[in-house]
Amino acid sequence: MLGPSFTGAADKKKKRPAPVVSPTIHQDRTVTFRIKAPAADKVSVSGEMLKGKIELTKGKDGIWSATTDPVPPGLYGYNFSVDGLKMIDPGNPELKPMRSPKTSVLHIPGGNPYDFQNVPHGTVHLHNYHSEPINRYREMLVYTPPGYETEEKEYPLLVLQHGHSDSYETWIAYGKAHWILDNLIAAGKAKPMIVLMLDGHPIPESYGGGRSPENTEELRKDLMQAALPMVESLYRVKPGRENRAIAGLSMGGLHSLTIGLNELDTFSTIGAFSAAPPDSAALKKALDNANQTNNQLKLLWIACGEDDFLLKENQTFTKTLTEAGIDHTFILTQGSHSWPVWRGYLADFVPLLFQ
Amino acid sequence: MLGPSFTGAADKKKKRPAPVVSPTIHQDRTVTFRIKAPAADKVSVSGEMLKGKIELTKGKDGIWSATTDPVPPGLYGYNFSVDGLKMIDPGNPELKPMRSPKTSVLHIPGGNPYDFQNVPHGTVHLHNYHSEPINRYREMLVYTPPGYETEEKEYPLLVLQHGHSDSYETWIAYGKAHWILDNLIAAGKAKPMIVLMLDGHPIPESYGGGRSPENTEELRKDLMQAALPMVESLYRVKPGRENRAIAGLSMGGLHSLTIGLNELDTFSTIGAFSAAPPDSAALKKALDNANQTNNQLKLLWIACGEDDFLLKENQTFTKTLTEAGIDHTFILTQGSHSWPVWRGYLADFVPLLFQ
Repeated sequence: MLGPSFTGAADKKKKRPAPVVSPTIHQDRTVTFRIKAPAADKVSVSGEMLKGKIELTKGKDGIWSATTDPVPPGLYGYNFSVDGLKMIDPGNPELKPMRSPKTSVLHIPGGNPYDFQNVPHGTVHLHNYHSEPINRYREMLVYTPPGYETEEKEYPLLVLQHGHSDSYETWIAYGKAHWILDNLIAAGKAKPMIVLMLDGHPIPESYGGGRSPENTEELRKDLMQAALPMVESLYRVKPGRENRAIAGLSMGGLHSLTIGLNELDTFSTIGAFSAAPPDSAALKKALDNANQTNNQLKLLWIACGEDDFLLKENQTFTKTLTEAGIDHTFILTQGSHSWPVWRGYLADFVPLLFQ
Repeated sequence: MLGPSFTGAADKKKKRPAPVVSPTIHQDRTVTFRIKAPAADKVSVSGEMLKGKIELTKGKDGIWSATTDPVPPGLYGYNFSVDGLKMIDPGNPELKPMRSPKTSVLHIPGGNPYDFQNVPHGTVHLHNYHSEPINRYREMLVYTPPGYETEEKEYPLLVLQHGHSDSYETWIAYGKAHWILDNLIAAGKAKPMIVLMLDGHPIPESYGGGRSPENTEELRKDLMQAALPMVESLYRVKPGRENRAIAGLSMGGLHSLTIGLNELDTFSTIGAFSAAPPDSAALKKALDNANQTNNQLKLLWIACGEDDFLLKENQTFTKTLTEAGIDHTFILTQGSHSWPVWRGYLADFVPLLFQ
C-alpha cells in the first residue's frame, strides 16, 4: 500500500498559514517589506537604505506592506516600527547579531567588496570555551583563509573586535569580514591570514557601561591567557609579534588601542576604526616610552568619519599621541559611526597587514 | 596632557538609555522578563517553560515586566505577545534560528545532556559555498569532535537535518547538537564523529511547501554532488558507507528517509525523528527490493512522541515498511513535536552509530 502524502496529511492535521515572506527584492531592485500585525494602528520601516521611514499599508489578513524605490546594491540594516515598537522583520531569517536584536538585514549583491563572490572561500569556526583566567563561559569565531584545510602553511593572525551593541558574531554576519577577506585574498591585495573575533563584553553586566576599564581588563586577560594560546594550539598560526595585529570598531577600537599598546611584545600593528579612544592613563607605559613604542609599532592606524560623533575624541586622542611622540596614521574619511564605513575600513586596513 | 575619559565624553555626546536586559535568571531560578513598549496596551510572555502565558505589568519608562515561578533547568523557547503581535525578546541576544524568527532562548543549565559542561569541546565550522549542481548560494555547518585539530585521525560522518521552520543553524544554536556530542563523547557513550548540517530549504520559495519532492531532490543533489564531496575534501572523513549516517527531524526526517533510502550505496544508517514520512512512491526502489535494502541497512531508526501530530503518519509509514519487509526500529516515546523530544532523540541515536 502507499503511505499518505505528508503535505496533504499535514494540511489536514495542522493548518499552517502561508508564511509572510519579507523582504522581497524585485528585478528592478525595488524592495517589498511585509509584516502580519492585525491589531496594529501604524507600521513603518526604517533602514540604512532609506532616507527617513516608509509607512506600510494594511492589507487583507492584517498583513502590512510597502515597496521602496529601487535600492542600490549594498548591505543594509533595517527595522519595523509597530505602533512605536522598534523590532526585527519576523519574515526575514537574516538578523544583525546584537546584544539587543532589533535589526534585520537586507543584502542586495552587486560589485561590493563585502559581497559573496565567485572566488575561493575561507571557513569560519565557532569555539565555545570556559576561560580559566576570568572563570567565564566564552564564545569566539575564527576565520581561516581559503586553502587552510588543504595546505600545510602557517598564517599571521588578526584579532578583530566588535562594537558596543554588537556580539562576537557581528563582524561575520553583518560586517561580512570573511567575504571581505576572501575577495581581497583572491585579488592578491591581502596576505592570507587567520582572524580571531572575541566577545567584547566578558562582563555581561557591563553592557551599558561596556567601556569600563574592568571590562577591557577582563577581555585582555581572556585574550592573552586563554583565547590566544587556544588559537595558537588549534590553528597553524605563524609565530612572532610581527605576525600579530589587533583592530576593532568603536568600543572594539578602545579595546584594540588599550590591549595593543599595553601588549607590544605580542602585537606589532593596531587598527582603530571610529574608536572610543582610551583615557591616556590606560596607555601610560606606551606614551611615556615613545622611542620603545615606535620601535615596536609597525603600524598604528586610526580612522574616523567626518560625521562620526566620536570624531572630536579621535582628534583629541591623535593630538595626545603626537604630543607624546607616538608614530601613527590618522585617516579622516566620509561617513558616520556606521557599518558601511567599518566594512570599508577593514577593506583598507587588511592590505596593510603582514607585509 | 590627558585625553578625555571616553565614557564621560560619550555621555555628553550621545545619550544612551540604560539597556533593557531580559531575561534575568535569579538565584532561586525564578526568571524576570522585560520589554520596553510604552505604547502597548497588553504584553504577555509564553514559552516552553510555562503552562500558558504570563501577563507583564507596565512600569516606569514604559518597561513591562513579569517574574515566573522557579523554572526547572532546561532550554526553552519563548516569545512576547505585544498587543497580539508575537515577537522575540529584544533584550535577549540568544535567538532560535528560524525562517521566521519569533522565538528567543532561555537556557538554565543543570545536569541536562545538552548543557555546556566541563569536558573537551569540538568545533563548529561555517562554510558558505556556491552549489554547482543546483546553481545556488548555500550555507552549511560542520561539527568536528574534540581533538580533531590536533589528532591525525579519520572520523565517520553523520548528516543531521533540521525541520521545516528551522535553518541550518538550528541544530546548533537551539538543538545544542555540538554540546550533546561533546558530552556523549566525553562519557565514552558515542564514537567521535563529524556532523554535517545543511539548509533544508534549497528552494527558498519552498518555504510553506518545503516538503515538495522538488525541494527534497534539490537537497539530495546538493548533498550528494556538492556538500558531501566538499566535506570529504576538506575534512578527514573515514571512507565507506558503513561510516555514513543521515538523520533529521520532521521535514528533516522526510529528507533523511527519502535521500537515505535512495542512496544506500552512500548511507548505511538512517534516523527519522518525528518525521514527516515520505510518500511510498518516493521510496519505490528500496521498498521493492527488501532483501537488498535490508542487506545494506545497518539501522533504520524511527522515533515519534505519543502526543506528536505526526504519530499517525509515522505508524502508517512503519506499517508500510513492515508490509514491504524492510527491517526497522520504531520507538514510541513521550512528548510532542518539539525540541525537548528531538534533543533526547539525538542523545539516544548517536550512541548507536558506527559501532
